[in-house]
Amino acid sequence: MDIRKCAAEAIGTFWLTFGGCGSAVLAAAFPELGIGFAGVALAFGLTVVTMAYAIGHISGCHLNPAVTIGLAAGRRFPGRDIGPYIAAQLVGAVAASGLLLAIAGGAPGFDLAKGFAANGYGEHSPGQYSLVACFLAEVVLTLMFLFVIMGATHGKAPAGFAPLAIGLCLTLIHLVGIPITNLSVNPARSTGPAVVAGGWALAQLWLFWVAPIIGGALGGVLYRWLSEEPSAQVTGMPRAAATP
Amino acid sequence: MDIRKCAAEAIGTFWLTFGGCGSAVLAAAFPELGIGFAGVALAFGLTVVTMAYAIGHISGCHLNPAVTIGLAAGRRFPGRDIGPYIAAQLVGAVAASGLLLAIAGGAPGFDLAKGFAANGYGEHSPGQYSLVACFLAEVVLTLMFLFVIMGATHGKAPAGFAPLAIGLCLTLIHLVGIPITNLSVNPARSTGPAVVAGGWALAQLWLFWVAPIIGGALGGVLYRWLSEEPSAQVTGMPRAAATP
Amino acid sequence: MDIRKCAAEAIGTFWLTFGGCGSAVLAAAFPELGIGFAGVALAFGLTVVTMAYAIGHISGCHLNPAVTIGLAAGRRFPGRDIGPYIAAQLVGAVAASGLLLAIAGGAPGFDLAKGFAANGYGEHSPGQYSLVACFLAEVVLTLMFLFVIMGATHGKAPAGFAPLAIGLCLTLIHLVGIPITNLSVNPARSTGPAVVAGGWALAQLWLFWVAPIIGGALGGVLYRWLSEEPSAQVTGMPRAAATP
Amino acid sequence: MDIRKCAAEAIGTFWLTFGGCGSAVLAAAFPELGIGFAGVALAFGLTVVTMAYAIGHISGCHLNPAVTIGLAAGRRFPGRDIGPYIAAQLVGAVAASGLLLAIAGGAPGFDLAKGFAANGYGEHSPGQYSLVACFLAEVVLTLMFLFVIMGATHGKAPAGFAPLAIGLCLTLIHLVGIPITNLSVNPARSTGPAVVAGGWALAQLWLFWVAPIIGGALGGVLYRWLSEEPSAQVTGMPRAAATP
Repeated sequence: MDIRKCAAEAIGTFWLTFGGCGSAVLAAAFPELGIGFAGVALAFGLTVVTMAYAIGHISGCHLNPAVTIGLAAGRRFPGRDIGPYIAAQLVGAVAASGLLLAIAGGAPGFDLAKGFAANGYGEHSPGQYSLVACFLAEVVLTLMFLFVIMGATHGKAPAGFAPLAIGLCLTLIHLVGIPITNLSVNPARSTGPAVVAGGWALAQLWLFWVAPIIGGALGGVLYRWLSEEPSAQVTGMPRAAATP
Repeated sequence: MDIRKCAAEAIGTFWLTFGGCGSAVLAAAFPELGIGFAGVALAFGLTVVTMAYAIGHISGCHLNPAVTIGLAAGRRFPGRDIGPYIAAQLVGAVAASGLLLAIAGGAPGFDLAKGFAANGYGEHSPGQYSLVACFLAEVVLTLMFLFVIMGATHGKAPAGFAPLAIGLCLTLIHLVGIPITNLSVNPARSTGPAVVAGGWALAQLWLFWVAPIIGGALGGVLYRWLSEEPSAQVTGMPRAAATP
Repeated sequence: MDIRKCAAEAIGTFWLTFGGCGSAVLAAAFPELGIGFAGVALAFGLTVVTMAYAIGHISGCHLNPAVTIGLAAGRRFPGRDIGPYIAAQLVGAVAASGLLLAIAGGAPGFDLAKGFAANGYGEHSPGQYSLVACFLAEVVLTLMFLFVIMGATHGKAPAGFAPLAIGLCLTLIHLVGIPITNLSVNPARSTGPAVVAGGWALAQLWLFWVAPIIGGALGGVLYRWLSEEPSAQVTGMPRAAATP
Repeated sequence: MDIRKCAAEAIGTFWLTFGGCGSAVLAAAFPELGIGFAGVALAFGLTVVTMAYAIGHISGCHLNPAVTIGLAAGRRFPGRDIGPYIAAQLVGAVAASGLLLAIAGGAPGFDLAKGFAANGYGEHSPGQYSLVACFLAEVVLTLMFLFVIMGATHGKAPAGFAPLAIGLCLTLIHLVGIPITNLSVNPARSTGPAVVAGGWALAQLWLFWVAPIIGGALGGVLYRWLSEEPSAQVTGMPRAAATP
């Protein structure tokens, strides 16, 4: 396992969590001029767009345990590297949440109890969606996310555009799903704020590991069936992203 | 007819309907932070951007009976495949609406009678536009949609950008037309919510088949005349989207 | 002069005017969910993005007399074709405004006196900016628009991206300037609504011919000086946009 | 030092400051239809997207002293050219602020004391963030900005996409950070409005030189370590942006 790949995943997941959750905590509900759910959706997507161009050629830019597992399920990523990748992603996400706390806490009236962009279901869902609805949404949205990732990085897809397609897919997913669970599809992104906020966020964290991983694995398998890929290649995003 | 192409069209149209109508039903009018019409417009467009990169090289990524018919009118798609493509698109759209109902129904206060993102005219138009205005708008917007699709996938257009051009065209069309009909330009997208919501949505569904198909066919013919294309090639989007 | 080029310019300018002004008239101020100035800015930009991919390889996709004149000033477009291009652009813009009137008039409470997206200065400026401020803004913004167009279509700029750069430049220009003049930088786009709305819109139309044309010509000359281009090539946007 | 490079940097930084700060001063808080922080974030990003395509092949399109210094720290830019680049950037930024004052002052009720888009901390932070939080945010966001710039212009990143990745990164950074400091990450962009507004804006300007330059240098060094680049090449953005 290349240490540079792990460092890239940690930095990238730091960026996803800091940029995405940061926009939610700091800017979404700013009086009069706030960016709203649409701005947060754009911010999450752009963390992936920017990092995929910056480190896609180093680590494949997963930034998400469900993506790592989904790509492995789709035979694009070697199973033996799943552990180090997820560990690096968690380091990045938790570091981002700690830094975000330090910055957000520098404003008068900051209140960690407002949720700190943690994901939740039932009474902690932004729109109070039931556990079943939340679970279903996270499975389906992660499934489709992996489907798009597998497709956009396929050898027949136009080279170089995968980071845009994948990042904008994350924006789209947030445009649909923030009201449901505050939107995860990414266990690392969920773990960061949950560790900092504690309480219910930590108690509900299980769903944001189980559902995205189920969805991600199904998405990887579905696309592989659809494209009748031979199982030879094991690379993930880099192939497309690194095209000269 | 390749079963993989039909599966791709079904999955893609599922995504268009679930992502687009889902953003409208779940997130558009969320108190304070909702994404509004602009967020819905972006969501619809991004369903096409993401799927065109993911499955453009498999099925051409029509996701829309009016596109399939328009491309056939423009001699880019073989007439014998129109039927299976439209059937697959309808399966995807209806499945998406069913799933959306299951998720949306998991929130307190959900009310199917609010419209469920169905398309309508007259008293069921968001801005209460007359039948004639709605018909005219759907014809013109679908015509221009096909014009852009034909042009952006033309052999002389820059390769690889067609999914962006086409998806962002759908965003543009929604930025103009949501107040008029809730915006269709796509009979499959209209059929999904209408089947679930029933009542007036089903009774007004005819317009969202007739007008987009007329517009789509005219757009395909217009572009073909403009570009003086020979009628040899019969491929649709894949050629441009699959460029290495 | 190729009739197909003129037809492409007419259709494209129709799209710019119908899509941009349509989003402003129909959707900007829709209660609660309206797209606001930001949505209108996005719509104007996307008309250019979509058309530049669709017809860039046919006519160069100017859609704007100030662009046509600016490219001629920058020695990228032959002077003898200026007349037919501008005539075609005016036909498209006026047709778009007529159609928009037919659709917008189909809603209860439509009021042409609200401005119909016409451009204005002084008391008819959205933010009541003075004539001098409006003139200055239109000159500078058109100058920079042409500067970006010249640069993004330069032979050393990355091929295929010019439509994105140019369309998103128009979005940017609107994000800055809608409060000033409702934003023109395009005499054809200004003429369409002015002809339909009449009155003050027609009386103030002169500024939206004079200022954009001065700015466009200056921008073309400035970029040409900066890039030390030889004056041989005379093509406009197509070269970059048509790259295979 | 090539005079054309300096002219390009001056014009580009003019555009960044005029477009970004202009959208904030003129359009962000327009009644009912204003573009808000999200629109300003988009505007700042698009100034870079558009200029990077237009002048990337001339000067590398830094438009920012922290970028120039960060690229030098990352061994992509020769140290001897730092001075002329920064001088040109300051000329552009101050000229932009002067022009913006002339235009904004043409509206009734214009009040320079509202801040004129200057950056500030403590009581002059939009959300009244502490000096420490502001300093930290500017360091981290500039660090990540340079990290993305270094990565997206790396020889293994897909050619031609760097302007999009870098411009959209600036949009993302603004989506997170406008509430903190009004967002700088760019000493030139901060200097323009501070010179015009004077008073507290000038007194607080030091932070927006020190923090971005520290962050930029760290980002350049971090990416260089991660990618194990040999130190031979010294070019900045042009290499990727100028790919044919």
